[in-house]
Amino acid sequence: MTMIIDCHGHYTILPKAHEAWRTAQVAAFEAGRPSPAYPAIDDAEIRETIEANQLRLIKARGADMTIFSPRASAMAPHIGDAAVAREWATRCNDLIARVVSLYPGVFAGVCMLPQSPDAGLADAIVELERCVTELGFVGCNLNPDPGGGHFTAPPLTDRYWYPLYERMTALDVPAMIHVSGSCNPAMHATGGYYIAADTIAFMQLLEGDLFADFPNLRFIIPHGGGAVPYHWGRYRGLADMLKKPALDAHLMNNVFFDTCVYHQPGIDLLAEVIDPRNILFGSEMIGAVRGIDPTTGHHYDDTRRYVDALDLAADARHAIFEGNARRVFPRLDAILKEIGR
Amino acid sequence: MTMIIDCHGHYTILPKAHEAWRTAQVAAFEAGRPSPAYPAIDDAEIRETIEANQLRLIKARGADMTIFSPRASAMAPHIGDAAVAREWATRCNDLIARVVSLYPGVFAGVCMLPQSPDAGLADAIVELERCVTELGFVGCNLNPDPGGGHFTAPPLTDRYWYPLYERMTALDVPAMIHVSGSCNPAMHATGGYYIAADTIAFMQLLEGDLFADFPNLRFIIPHGGGAVPYHWGRYRGLADMLKKPALDAHLMNNVFFDTCVYHQPGIDLLAEVIDPRNILFGSEMIGAVRGIDPTTGHHYDDTRRYVDALDLAADARHAIFEGNARRVFPRLDAILKEIGR
Repeated sequence: MTMIIDCHGHYTILPKAHEAWRTAQVAAFEAGRPSPAYPAIDDAEIRETIEANQLRLIKARGADMTIFSPRASAMAPHIGDAAVAREWATRCNDLIARVVSLYPGVFAGVCMLPQSPDAGLADAIVELERCVTELGFVGCNLNPDPGGGHFTAPPLTDRYWYPLYERMTALDVPAMIHVSGSCNPAMHATGGYYIAADTIAFMQLLEGDLFADFPNLRFIIPHGGGAVPYHWGRYRGLADMLKKPALDAHLMNNVFFDTCVYHQPGIDLLAEVIDPRNILFGSEMIGAVRGIDPTTGHHYDDTRRYVDALDLAADARHAIFEGNARRVFPRLDAILKEIGR
Repeated sequence: MTMIIDCHGHYTILPKAHEAWRTAQVAAFEAGRPSPAYPAIDDAEIRETIEANQLRLIKARGADMTIFSPRASAMAPHIGDAAVAREWATRCNDLIARVVSLYPGVFAGVCMLPQSPDAGLADAIVELERCVTELGFVGCNLNPDPGGGHFTAPPLTDRYWYPLYERMTALDVPAMIHVSGSCNPAMHATGGYYIAADTIAFMQLLEGDLFADFPNLRFIIPHGGGAVPYHWGRYRGLADMLKKPALDAHLMNNVFFDTCVYHQPGIDLLAEVIDPRNILFGSEMIGAVRGIDPTTGHHYDDTRRYVDALDLAADARHAIFEGNARRVFPRLDAILKEIGR
């Protein structure tokens, strides 16, 4: 029996005290005051937010578990300084750990990283190590543009990122490449920035040879890989023009796309051009689009329906819903084996 | 008999003297010297570049005409100052006008605009007016990020752009939204920047209400609309979340996508989710991807093959290949009628 593992869920509807603390933290930074004390949040508050939202939808949609990370649009590592980013990441990741411990086997943790721009990666590496070894997380979200909307960071193939990749491969955890909110008025976060960043990230990888240096490094490019599957011919052609190997050998042992594409024709295309080995079921819920599609009567982000409607062989279906997630997140696989799944 | 009108062609293989002049122009600017004299380029040189390249491919692929504009990646309005951008745009547009006059009925001119960042739009408006009224051009390419890769310009819905839109609608010419080369090492031009900018531009339009102010303004978003058709459900859902009208009413009387998508599944998706009224045949040749797809044995950018392979009603096929181009570019329609087509 295939498990339905959603590789892309964010804790978007949060205990109010957590959000209020963030507001106070930022205000304190701006006023030059020390950060306020983090509030006590009891389990009941966490249960309330989860059960009314993620858990309700997981059940309603017939999924089994969600790989769960902090709200992406609020990661905002450009706000404040390195200490602000570090404390915010710690608090957010700790909250994810509490959700996981309250619902073992239903959630697995993925951490955000305190990537304060210009502060280097040392804090991110420390937090990754803490989340994986102390909190039992199975992966991280890596922000390719921590400045928040002007693409000023080095490409993902730059040696700047190598110390983090070394730690990721030593811990055997993948990263989802995921920007945060946009501080650029010309770029809407979930409609412009996310999809643009996904596409740009893939092209950075195509231009480089990162996986020659890190053959076991694994990235998930969310939102169905941005524009990439739709333009798969363009990317195959660009690989050829740039004298790179064919994409299958050059990138597709290390790069995976989720199924956060909110209509049937998009998922059909994804499954047509991308090998099922490279597709992980995901919904991004509760996320960018929360309404009901009037053309189907179902929620846009109920992506299981689209995958179910594909004409897939049993092994491909198993790979997309479960097998690939266990392969890309070996620490998730270990957790599941431990509980007999 | 339907004409095959390619709405997206760039003059990429150019007379060497024109390119050498550009190099000298930039060098002179950097050295604080006046711009060098523009060289004499005779018709034979222009014919040579066109006949060996664009015209050869137009014929080989069974097209009839190309809506032709200067090489997009070289527009680079951020190089030099406003005077440099103005002179470069003038020279490039004049060269397009010469191609059009040498091959009437085979090429129609679309101009680049001297959008030097921070210089405002006055020069762009003057050049648009000149190209349309003096050179007989039928449209323009509008760069939504003239800074070249950091998305620092106001969104396309900002009043900053309104004087240009007023001129465009007075002249009844559309714009293709098209960035230039990337000066951002994290963003490959044709693989990252172009597709990202297309997607971001669409979302800017979705967030605003520009076409309430300019009901006759028309934009072509190239490269198949960036990621938009692949994520059509996401954009329909975002319109709903942002309390905008449905996309058909909100944007699709004014926004058009070309067919510069370099594989059959991408074109299949485009035609499945986008009304044929909103699709203009285009190839972007000679452009981003020049090789042969080993899976088909044909050039990636021979997009006519993909459109031909669609199961289209006759009127939809006519709209995509000819009718929409004549409707979106009324000055093209007038030119064609004048020569009895």
